[in-house]
Amino acid sequence: MSTAEWEHFYASHAPPAELPEHRQQITDFCKHHQPNKIVLLTSGGTTVPLEHNTVRFVDNFSAGTRGAASAEYFLDNGYAVIFMYRQKSLEPFSRHFGGQKFLDMLEIQEKGSDVAINVKSNYINTIKPILSKYKSAHRENKILYVSFTTVSDYLWLLRVACECLTSSGANCLLYLAAAVSDFYVPSNEMPTHKMQSGEGAPVIQLQLVPKMLTPLVNNWVPRAYVVSFKLETDENLLISKSRHALNKYKHKLVIANVLQTRRHQVTFVTPETSFVINLNTEEMDSGIEIEESIVKNVISCHKEHIKQLDSH
Amino acid sequence: MSTAEWEHFYASHAPPAELPEHRQQITDFCKHHQPNKIVLLTSGGTTVPLEHNTVRFVDNFSAGTRGAASAEYFLDNGYAVIFMYRQKSLEPFSRHFGGQKFLDMLEIQEKGSDVAINVKSNYINTIKPILSKYKSAHRENKILYVSFTTVSDYLWLLRVACECLTSSGANCLLYLAAAVSDFYVPSNEMPTHKMQSGEGAPVIQLQLVPKMLTPLVNNWVPRAYVVSFKLETDENLLISKSRHALNKYKHKLVIANVLQTRRHQVTFVTPETSFVINLNTEEMDSGIEIEESIVKNVISCHKEHIKQLDSH
Repeated sequence: MSTAEWEHFYASHAPPAELPEHRQQITDFCKHHQPNKIVLLTSGGTTVPLEHNTVRFVDNFSAGTRGAASAEYFLDNGYAVIFMYRQKSLEPFSRHFGGQKFLDMLEIQEKGSDVAINVKSNYINTIKPILSKYKSAHRENKILYVSFTTVSDYLWLLRVACECLTSSGANCLLYLAAAVSDFYVPSNEMPTHKMQSGEGAPVIQLQLVPKMLTPLVNNWVPRAYVVSFKLETDENLLISKSRHALNKYKHKLVIANVLQTRRHQVTFVTPETSFVINLNTEEMDSGIEIEESIVKNVISCHKEHIKQLDSH
Repeated sequence: MSTAEWEHFYASHAPPAELPEHRQQITDFCKHHQPNKIVLLTSGGTTVPLEHNTVRFVDNFSAGTRGAASAEYFLDNGYAVIFMYRQKSLEPFSRHFGGQKFLDMLEIQEKGSDVAINVKSNYINTIKPILSKYKSAHRENKILYVSFTTVSDYLWLLRVACECLTSSGANCLLYLAAAVSDFYVPSNEMPTHKMQSGEGAPVIQLQLVPKMLTPLVNNWVPRAYVVSFKLETDENLLISKSRHALNKYKHKLVIANVLQTRRHQVTFVTPETSFVINLNTEEMDSGIEIEESIVKNVISCHKEHIKQLDSH
């Protein structure tokens, strides 16, 4: 792919309005944490709008579970985390209390005119460690939240984040867990208003999104440790496609997973080797999350990468 | 549209696995609340899968705000509520505490080995009324939650819910606020696995979803008061399209709104008349929600409908 292709994408899609603000936040955050280790973690799916005044869009399946869980384990391991996530997807810490769970945990206590609202005693042991970690991550400014919705927002934000992270060199880890659309509808081929059903059934002609891993690895953050994810539904394609991606983009690691088994099995594919990480039934039943192992292994790869770059 | 078209849709799309369970829950709920007023409230967008093992899908813009807010106001007004919502979309009560808001409201208090987790005093006045209403709605079994994801799940669930509601006659209100896709990809034209970007940019050929309002009004719940919603981005189409829908489907009320102004303005369109409901800036700033007025007006239309049917 020629440089022109991704430059053309940026040239033909306006940046999101909040991009300058995000750039400032990321710059400040990176400066604050230098020379410590920092991870840019992307999470959740991107949308592809089908109309300028968007009522309909193509979306990628992802609740953001892997990204939100991984963010917690990176914090546990001392990393500063830039959590770049799809708006309304799962977030670290609060992910444990989806839907109406937390309303069920609260009780109202009234004594005369005194009102208190407490967490019921049987929930305290569950909530306390999560709440403590949440509060210390925020107090110590260890996590920065930046959000996106469309694939174009995502790509703009990714480039800006990388520009801010260049100066972190090898200490920077990119953990690209977001489910980014491979396809999009070019801005100039999109209707302004909601498509009308009275006009018959529409045909949507998609185009390929340029693969930003190429400029990212070569130009934006050449010293960073870059991890991408590959999700397939056909297990037979998994390893070959992962290896193809490593050959093409020259990054360090693909974490490959199959839709149906992704909660308990992933395969680490590096240029040299591949190995499987999985949870057995006992571990799953006891509430252990596979992201804990994934992050532990990624961190050890990152350490090795820093050592290698330092020795050159 | 001939009967065959919607029957064909049901015949060619398998019902969701949990449908028998939902049918039982709705049957029990309707029985419990007879002869009181009951609303079937649909909320959130439906998805259109693009693959059988679904990674990509077309979605309809809707967070479920209008539906979740309206459910609370129906409960306030004594209705029993079947809340039929898109999985992970906003739910009544918990909608007030999105993202990480509720973690910020909690504080840990430790005295020796005693640990308590409380809502901070400055949040108590906000949470207390919401929590009280949540608890009483659940204690009194006034709300039933049933969820859907795909447009096909939605249509199956809608028909089953209507079958259960037939016996409620004119006391039944249908408040169809879900953003249902007009288009879909037929099951037999869908690839099994994730579409591969290496195979070039795909073309998605959509088909029209049959309009279920026709059998719903004529056959499924002929005595119910049926309200549909119309969302447009082009204001010029709004009233004409609403009136066209009323003429075509013979239901009672279309609540029409424009994407950009939907939080503070809607138009009630009935076969005889139309009128605007809006909030002024002062009302919006003070936290008043337009759904409060919408529900009040719908309820008064429903009362009138019952009176008319009773007098015949």
